[in-house]
Amino acid sequence: MGLQGDPVSACCRLREWKMSESNFAERSDTSEEKVSGATVIAQALKTQNVEFMFGIVGIPVFEIAFAAQRLGIRYIGMRNEQAACYAASAVGYLTGRYVECCMPPPVSMAETSAVQLAASVIRNAKQPLLIIGKGAAYAHAEEGIRKLVEQCKLPFLPTPMGKGVIPDNHPNCVRAARSRALQFADVIVLFGARLNWILHFGLPPRYRPDVKFIQIDICAEELGNNVRPSLTLLGDINAVTKQLLEQFDKTPWQYPPESQWWKTLREKMKSNEAASKELASKKSPLMNYYTVFFCVQEQLPRDCIVVSEGANTMDIGRTVLENYLPRHRLDAGTFGTMGVGLGFAIAAAVVVKARHLGQRVICVEGDSAFGFSGMEVETICRYNLPIVLLVVNNNGIYQGLDADTWNEMLNAGDATVVAPPSCFLPNLHYEQIMTAFGGKGYFVQTPEELQESLKQSLADTTKPSLINIMIETQAMRKAQDFQWLTRSNM
Amino acid sequence: MGLQGDPVSACCRLREWKMSESNFAERSDTSEEKVSGATVIAQALKTQNVEFMFGIVGIPVFEIAFAAQRLGIRYIGMRNEQAACYAASAVGYLTGRYVECCMPPPVSMAETSAVQLAASVIRNAKQPLLIIGKGAAYAHAEEGIRKLVEQCKLPFLPTPMGKGVIPDNHPNCVRAARSRALQFADVIVLFGARLNWILHFGLPPRYRPDVKFIQIDICAEELGNNVRPSLTLLGDINAVTKQLLEQFDKTPWQYPPESQWWKTLREKMKSNEAASKELASKKSPLMNYYTVFFCVQEQLPRDCIVVSEGANTMDIGRTVLENYLPRHRLDAGTFGTMGVGLGFAIAAAVVVKARHLGQRVICVEGDSAFGFSGMEVETICRYNLPIVLLVVNNNGIYQGLDADTWNEMLNAGDATVVAPPSCFLPNLHYEQIMTAFGGKGYFVQTPEELQESLKQSLADTTKPSLINIMIETQAMRKAQDFQWLTRSNM
Amino acid sequence: MGLQGDPVSACCRLREWKMSESNFAERSDTSEEKVSGATVIAQALKTQNVEFMFGIVGIPVFEIAFAAQRLGIRYIGMRNEQAACYAASAVGYLTGRYVECCMPPPVSMAETSAVQLAASVIRNAKQPLLIIGKGAAYAHAEEGIRKLVEQCKLPFLPTPMGKGVIPDNHPNCVRAARSRALQFADVIVLFGARLNWILHFGLPPRYRPDVKFIQIDICAEELGNNVRPSLTLLGDINAVTKQLLEQFDKTPWQYPPESQWWKTLREKMKSNEAASKELASKKSPLMNYYTVFFCVQEQLPRDCIVVSEGANTMDIGRTVLENYLPRHRLDAGTFGTMGVGLGFAIAAAVVVKARHLGQRVICVEGDSAFGFSGMEVETICRYNLPIVLLVVNNNGIYQGLDADTWNEMLNAGDATVVAPPSCFLPNLHYEQIMTAFGGKGYFVQTPEELQESLKQSLADTTKPSLINIMIETQAMRKAQDFQWLTRSNM
Amino acid sequence: MGLQGDPVSACCRLREWKMSESNFAERSDTSEEKVSGATVIAQALKTQNVEFMFGIVGIPVFEIAFAAQRLGIRYIGMRNEQAACYAASAVGYLTGRYVECCMPPPVSMAETSAVQLAASVIRNAKQPLLIIGKGAAYAHAEEGIRKLVEQCKLPFLPTPMGKGVIPDNHPNCVRAARSRALQFADVIVLFGARLNWILHFGLPPRYRPDVKFIQIDICAEELGNNVRPSLTLLGDINAVTKQLLEQFDKTPWQYPPESQWWKTLREKMKSNEAASKELASKKSPLMNYYTVFFCVQEQLPRDCIVVSEGANTMDIGRTVLENYLPRHRLDAGTFGTMGVGLGFAIAAAVVVKARHLGQRVICVEGDSAFGFSGMEVETICRYNLPIVLLVVNNNGIYQGLDADTWNEMLNAGDATVVAPPSCFLPNLHYEQIMTAFGGKGYFVQTPEELQESLKQSLADTTKPSLINIMIETQAMRKAQDFQWLTRSNM
Repeated sequence: MGLQGDPVSACCRLREWKMSESNFAERSDTSEEKVSGATVIAQALKTQNVEFMFGIVGIPVFEIAFAAQRLGIRYIGMRNEQAACYAASAVGYLTGRYVECCMPPPVSMAETSAVQLAASVIRNAKQPLLIIGKGAAYAHAEEGIRKLVEQCKLPFLPTPMGKGVIPDNHPNCVRAARSRALQFADVIVLFGARLNWILHFGLPPRYRPDVKFIQIDICAEELGNNVRPSLTLLGDINAVTKQLLEQFDKTPWQYPPESQWWKTLREKMKSNEAASKELASKKSPLMNYYTVFFCVQEQLPRDCIVVSEGANTMDIGRTVLENYLPRHRLDAGTFGTMGVGLGFAIAAAVVVKARHLGQRVICVEGDSAFGFSGMEVETICRYNLPIVLLVVNNNGIYQGLDADTWNEMLNAGDATVVAPPSCFLPNLHYEQIMTAFGGKGYFVQTPEELQESLKQSLADTTKPSLINIMIETQAMRKAQDFQWLTRSNM
Repeated sequence: MGLQGDPVSACCRLREWKMSESNFAERSDTSEEKVSGATVIAQALKTQNVEFMFGIVGIPVFEIAFAAQRLGIRYIGMRNEQAACYAASAVGYLTGRYVECCMPPPVSMAETSAVQLAASVIRNAKQPLLIIGKGAAYAHAEEGIRKLVEQCKLPFLPTPMGKGVIPDNHPNCVRAARSRALQFADVIVLFGARLNWILHFGLPPRYRPDVKFIQIDICAEELGNNVRPSLTLLGDINAVTKQLLEQFDKTPWQYPPESQWWKTLREKMKSNEAASKELASKKSPLMNYYTVFFCVQEQLPRDCIVVSEGANTMDIGRTVLENYLPRHRLDAGTFGTMGVGLGFAIAAAVVVKARHLGQRVICVEGDSAFGFSGMEVETICRYNLPIVLLVVNNNGIYQGLDADTWNEMLNAGDATVVAPPSCFLPNLHYEQIMTAFGGKGYFVQTPEELQESLKQSLADTTKPSLINIMIETQAMRKAQDFQWLTRSNM
Repeated sequence: MGLQGDPVSACCRLREWKMSESNFAERSDTSEEKVSGATVIAQALKTQNVEFMFGIVGIPVFEIAFAAQRLGIRYIGMRNEQAACYAASAVGYLTGRYVECCMPPPVSMAETSAVQLAASVIRNAKQPLLIIGKGAAYAHAEEGIRKLVEQCKLPFLPTPMGKGVIPDNHPNCVRAARSRALQFADVIVLFGARLNWILHFGLPPRYRPDVKFIQIDICAEELGNNVRPSLTLLGDINAVTKQLLEQFDKTPWQYPPESQWWKTLREKMKSNEAASKELASKKSPLMNYYTVFFCVQEQLPRDCIVVSEGANTMDIGRTVLENYLPRHRLDAGTFGTMGVGLGFAIAAAVVVKARHLGQRVICVEGDSAFGFSGMEVETICRYNLPIVLLVVNNNGIYQGLDADTWNEMLNAGDATVVAPPSCFLPNLHYEQIMTAFGGKGYFVQTPEELQESLKQSLADTTKPSLINIMIETQAMRKAQDFQWLTRSNM
Repeated sequence: MGLQGDPVSACCRLREWKMSESNFAERSDTSEEKVSGATVIAQALKTQNVEFMFGIVGIPVFEIAFAAQRLGIRYIGMRNEQAACYAASAVGYLTGRYVECCMPPPVSMAETSAVQLAASVIRNAKQPLLIIGKGAAYAHAEEGIRKLVEQCKLPFLPTPMGKGVIPDNHPNCVRAARSRALQFADVIVLFGARLNWILHFGLPPRYRPDVKFIQIDICAEELGNNVRPSLTLLGDINAVTKQLLEQFDKTPWQYPPESQWWKTLREKMKSNEAASKELASKKSPLMNYYTVFFCVQEQLPRDCIVVSEGANTMDIGRTVLENYLPRHRLDAGTFGTMGVGLGFAIAAAVVVKARHLGQRVICVEGDSAFGFSGMEVETICRYNLPIVLLVVNNNGIYQGLDADTWNEMLNAGDATVVAPPSCFLPNLHYEQIMTAFGGKGYFVQTPEELQESLKQSLADTTKPSLINIMIETQAMRKAQDFQWLTRSNM
């Protein structure tokens, strides 16, 4: 993401220079070179308009951080280089800088005849679908795509990080009928979305064997991966969208809102939403994922930045929590890398603070995901970043155990022998990590406690908070049409 | 270290297989292949006598961990793969396994004539010194080297992880006069010690320009790095030590205990020890490093395994805390990699538990070092590993700030602009991380509190504990003869 | 070039499989697997429409070549894998295949506004220049570029492998005033030409410091290398050329043919051509480069494929020998790799033969360049490829020695001590290599002998021939305006 | 081999510096830096005692070759960098230099107890065999190994480049019963010989399943490759051989010369030698491999350096041509890289000339192998290196075709379609390449012609010669006990 565009990766490596540089320092008579070196580095970063640095500094690279601060660069000291790298990459995405010293790449467009052909294929589609990917967000293509959707009355589906390019609550958004839409569409237009595992590789049975893909992408090497598309439009996604719009401006057309396809999709959306709501309203001693996310969704500020990671937490959360603005969601992405959440949230909060944007940053973590970089809570407190951290806690990875079962197991012998590989201790008080460092912590077990703690957390813009949300350890999702790899479907 | 010898690295990578394997799984009609694959992997590890696995498992590699457990391999679920790798590498070192499926390399010896020459150079030395490195510990050369030291009455110095090959309190150990010994020795024999930055590259002014190095090493490529030695003995360190002993058995010789060199070294040791003690006994509102380590040393069990990382914490701690047994110390090593401590401690405790060795594991962490993998405290609690964690807390890296100064700075503006790069919030309650997860936590500010909490921690062999030891934020070491890179000298 | 598109690289590596495969073969009871393996490989190549294979086969990969032949693939056995690789890469370029199993990349275009801007910059240029690169030949952009040149009456310059996209003898071609054109142009449009060393990196003093570059390229990473262009048009060169033409169709414009710029260029071309002709007609005992190339140019068939490598031979030859068709010239290219000539010529002749194109292949080699792959003359004879090989022989690299000087030197002592590094023996009879293998050989020392031998060689379409052309060992080029790296300038 | 020890590899790469350096040169005002750079490089090479350089130089690296010559380094200009690299690697092996600027690695020995055990295993062997590898030649272990062979009366077998460590005609050499010796030995001691494909990986059916290997090697990573040896002696081969000798000096022992094992081996040697002689004396229109090599062996000077490459040529030649001195044979080695022969021969001849050793260099090439670097014949002529080149010519790789068959095939159609992959034109006159460049060439078809031409070639020490030896195109070896990979067996 932003690693190349931002210098933090350089900074993170600085620790490695320690020995060689110190050796050098010892041999020189004065320390002038060292000071000078630090200033040169900081100045180089400044020249490239670097605004934010994330890292960990020790002797003898302190000076670089100091020099950067003197030049007005914000230096955020983290607790592990891993989290520092995640933070830096998120800044690159949020601020949209790819590097100043190089010229920006020019915008390229698709061949006119290919665009005409694409428009014609869309016009002739019986069951069309647009898929809006992260590439559309990167390309700032929101205006054009929205116009296309509304003008042609087409159904669309966002990928995880494509959420918000058009608001999730747009009437043409068919997120709630995702599996159905993918399975029966006869023409699918990919706006910067790639047919990787998140989109089931574009293959049956998740898709019709005869589905026609129209792939819009900036990268020629990505075209035709996994599936051979019917048509490919190579170019800047924003520019190509405008080319498509020109076609529909010349010869206006719209997909019939009363078609059987729209009817099917709307019915499926309705029944899925009802099923989710029923799960959410289920009365049981402990909450399930849907109860939690419906509660959260109710209070979520419209313009907040949502960061999320985890397995079920991220997957189910994505279906319930809505995004209304482009580039306002950061999650574990294509590779599902766990541990990115706190770094991303810190980066988002630092940008918001530096630019006085006034938005809230909500970080929704599975309990396992939280463990990867949990010590960065101290960083959040140190810089007083008003992040609201939600830890959805089911005592482990996928399905934890309750306290009774754990105790039985431990009675059976040494924990290093008998403990299940991916269960944590029951009812861990993660919120105490936040209170240990001076933030607010909440341990909640009911919808009411969750609502109240979230209300307080959002109201207090001066302090970070962590809400540790206990759910059923066996908390499952609603039934799925497909086995395995069906996680984010409805 | 033990990465090649232990399979955890494989296991840590398993997460990456997720997508491809799941894809495969979906296409197969039954799940037999998947189960079978997990068993095959687990069986392969078992065949190679793997006893311990560290990792994080999710769908669909759960099965591998389960399969491993079924076969009697101990699987330890960690919170971040980084820490899992550190743990695995430590197991390799502690249990001395290099891999079963390959044959062990045969022992090689040095050329007889070179050994004779080496013995003759040692006999003719005016100011001899032996340096015992990590290689001597790896080679299990303790018996031979101790015999050589005692028979020939030679002064010796251990490197950080060479500590304990001969007990630190051996009368011939000149640790307390380290700088002096290095600076004036005319013949230095390196037993598996390498002239890297920890040994100041073997160069003046830390050494005599005419010092003669005799380098004993198993690796030909390491011979002559940085400095051209007078003599090199290529071979297994244990075997070569025995070859040397044969020479001194044939023609017995001992270095005069009343030589000027021994006199100089003993005097310097005395004065250095007095200086340390004076610092340790200094009465001030808060403790300094020496106060802390003298307290700890008093109670340290003779056979405990000491794990340590940090900057001053590790460096000064090394000079005060004594090792009496080989391979009973694990620290950040040659590359000074921070974040290794908790993984190492977990590995040591798991081995101790599995083999019923009954030793204690003491993990001495700087507060910054602790931050890298602090979430592994939950792992410690989950497996109920009776580790005693000491966090030596000076509010930051090298020199933190006190609360008043911090508050002043924060009044001056936004923390993301004004906070010093490497200072943490004052008086952070790291011990609450331990209590949040069910262990014992202590916040100590006086020698008495430290003594008492340590006593309790060592007495309770059923629970882990964390002692958060506040020291002067400006806590410095005693004056050094050399600038920079002089950290571990006395 | 064509290495990825053609399987010869795979084939060349086959030799390495020898041992492992044979080992496998020995362990199997029957040889069925081996046969089957060869067929599988050949079938895979055939499926990808591979028509030509170049390689060297031994046991046990004979079978692969046999299997390929059975499937109708032409297998050309070479004498060194190096030459086989060169040949395969040339086939890729000549036949324009990039690979069938992948879909062809779609055509991308430049942003309309950037194209408009580019047209406007060209319209306002005082001293415009088009540079036509290898990229234009790859893109098959000849029709569009020619139309642009003729419609707008612009001067153009081809790069070495851009020669022939528009015929070299086109009145707008300013090759004969290359240095002048580069030095004084105020707007330069690069059609798939890159500012590497061949174009003097686009820097002063070879260019005006304020020259405006308009860079048209398919590869975003190439834009802005060495020099920051004023405008970049990212896209398929053919498509972008057409976009430019649209602009000039909408608002027709032409650069005044009576401008001072055209006048300057025409005068410089005239004087340069006169200087070359004078050199060519110089009467001296031996010929110089210009005499040779003027002779050759007179007889060169219009549609022949010219292959060339060498230092002065390639550089001066390029200025005299004309190309009239795109993709009819192959030379050592950007990296100046010596040794490519015979492989390229063999590839071209094989393609011509297979497709019954009836063209001649003329391979113009410096004597040193010839030495790299000279043994491939046997390959030429074996397959009876009617290539005309010209070896321009000056007894060495750059400047050889005459026989007298050589003899003097050798009298001074052992050749391994006294021989100049880059001189060969005088008057080497390279043509005897051709006659040894059954082709025709000529040793020529005068223009008349050259003319006659060339006439005979071109007339005989059944046999290859080699004309060994002795030139003055001190044969130099005409005076240059710039020192060093000025080779191809006039 | 010697690539690291000799600077030619650097020199070969110099061509690549061309562009960047020239660019630099153009920007500097004077050319002083360039001259200075060349001298610095040449001086650096001289400082490391480099005596020989092989390469190809052009502008602007001429100066480096000139500078090297001025400093007394012999610079040999080659025709292709590939051959230059081969030559440089051979110089490293022949002159025994690994690099001066580094210290020589110390000699290591095997563990005494392992040596004792090895001696005991040898004493108890019923059918012992020593295999002498290239490692023994590298280690200059000839004296010790010969003493061991003679003192203990053990049968031995050399690997291709281990030939000559003990003379091939030594009575204990069982080369002529190679397959038998390998197949039935119960204890095999490997002196720097590795169980790769040349030794059939040490596996049945070429070896007894219960054979005990004792592996002596300097490289721990090589121990136990392919086969798990019974005993491994890690150390310098010369030093370990002496350790073994000490054991047999302490307790003398010899293997009974009248054992059944010796009897079996001697009988097999006799019958194999008889079979070879019979093949050699076969009267047929054309010679076969045995006829050729028996002729050559008769005249081979005892101290000559034999270079060889090819398939049957190298394999059968190795069994007939005898070596009497260590490090006097260079062939295509473990990887069977074709094309090395001329480079190796040039290197050997240059060393012989420079050191006035007066030996002859005989280079025995298969016709295909010759094709890889055949142009280096000009280099041989230019430096007047009195190499005798033998090209054993069967019109192709493995089995060529005769003229009649070829003509038939060509009548069937275009050679690029019908020509067999690895057959060359019949009766190619390779000797004319030598005559074209001024050496002596012979085309021989009978034993008498071969004897006479070889006699003349060896008698003339002032000129190189090439004898092109036509053999039966179907010339095969005698029947083999094993299929495939049995090439060098008797």
